[in-house]
Amino acid sequence: MRLKHVKGAEEIVNNSHYVISDNTYKNNYQKLFKNNNPLHIEIGMGKGNFITQMALLNPDINFIGIEKYDSVIIRAIEKQEQLQLDNLYFIRMNADKIEDYFSKEIDLIYLNFSDPWPKDRHKLRRLSSPYFLEKYDNIFKSKARIIMKTDNRKLFEYSICCFNNHQYKINDISLDLYKDDYPNNIPTEYEIKFHNKGCPIYMIDIEK
Amino acid sequence: MRLKHVKGAEEIVNNSHYVISDNTYKNNYQKLFKNNNPLHIEIGMGKGNFITQMALLNPDINFIGIEKYDSVIIRAIEKQEQLQLDNLYFIRMNADKIEDYFSKEIDLIYLNFSDPWPKDRHKLRRLSSPYFLEKYDNIFKSKARIIMKTDNRKLFEYSICCFNNHQYKINDISLDLYKDDYPNNIPTEYEIKFHNKGCPIYMIDIEK
Repeated sequence: MRLKHVKGAEEIVNNSHYVISDNTYKNNYQKLFKNNNPLHIEIGMGKGNFITQMALLNPDINFIGIEKYDSVIIRAIEKQEQLQLDNLYFIRMNADKIEDYFSKEIDLIYLNFSDPWPKDRHKLRRLSSPYFLEKYDNIFKSKARIIMKTDNRKLFEYSICCFNNHQYKINDISLDLYKDDYPNNIPTEYEIKFHNKGCPIYMIDIEK
Repeated sequence: MRLKHVKGAEEIVNNSHYVISDNTYKNNYQKLFKNNNPLHIEIGMGKGNFITQMALLNPDINFIGIEKYDSVIIRAIEKQEQLQLDNLYFIRMNADKIEDYFSKEIDLIYLNFSDPWPKDRHKLRRLSSPYFLEKYDNIFKSKARIIMKTDNRKLFEYSICCFNNHQYKINDISLDLYKDDYPNNIPTEYEIKFHNKGCPIYMIDIEK
């Protein structure tokens, strides 16, 4: 993602009611959300269109969007400050630190249009690498479920192999999402852009 | 495949030196080939371009091409009658009967542009279905290896799920073979046709 510097972004993030700034709620997100609903997270949510829509449409699910860049996360905060959804919070952090913020309490992880890290020497930085899949094992409640979408063919091929090696079963897969019938699909900002360029959008839904 | 009736095809098939007409060599293909080289088969070889090229380029591997239609298999026989390769034979049969012809002696199965059987009620007829994968388990020597190519997206999605469920590991996968670097790829008749139409060609190489 090409990043613009946004003046005052850090301050906005630090002061927002909707940003969780430390691990106070680790193993206790029920206290934050004031209910025992399932917890879904999106790692690398960008400007938050997807997770905001999901939270709006699914009031019985709790959502946390994770993003590392201030200048991007503030766009999600702006939307949420208007909507004030009870079931949506954000964390500004590097995905690397995910185990610091969550214990065994996640029901579903969304990975949407993650950075493909195309160089082989960077492959463990991809959010579907064995390095991250092991971290996710430590934060899923009981059943692990991941839904991934991307336009990046090489990232998708790599991810299929990693999921397969990590004992995941495939619930669903599409190698061209917009040619299949997914009436409830919520597109991300990237997804709209790449779909409009004519790129196939890849999707996989896995669990173990 | 649209089939033309070819006059005298059955007789040509019955009389060819290169067609194995019964299970004489089951568990004993060394006797046929007069060596202990690895045995690779292609199920649904069509006119046999792929397997003939493979046999020509790999004299240290034995190949058997399987095809159920007389009017198609004769095109492979015609080529082989000219080339007279020592390492290539054919069987005319329905894939369903594969265990009648082979015991635990196959090293690799090629599935190229198999019939997609698009209707859900026919899905077990697909050559990558659990029904067939169980049959293949009974004919692989020790390690099982399958290399599949297709232009059919739905068949490929289905196959990835079946292979995953059947404990296969992925050696390699390409969701657009002609955009990747496969200098040694041997195209089939269908492959050339569909690639020329601009369809992506899907490939997966799996083993267990």
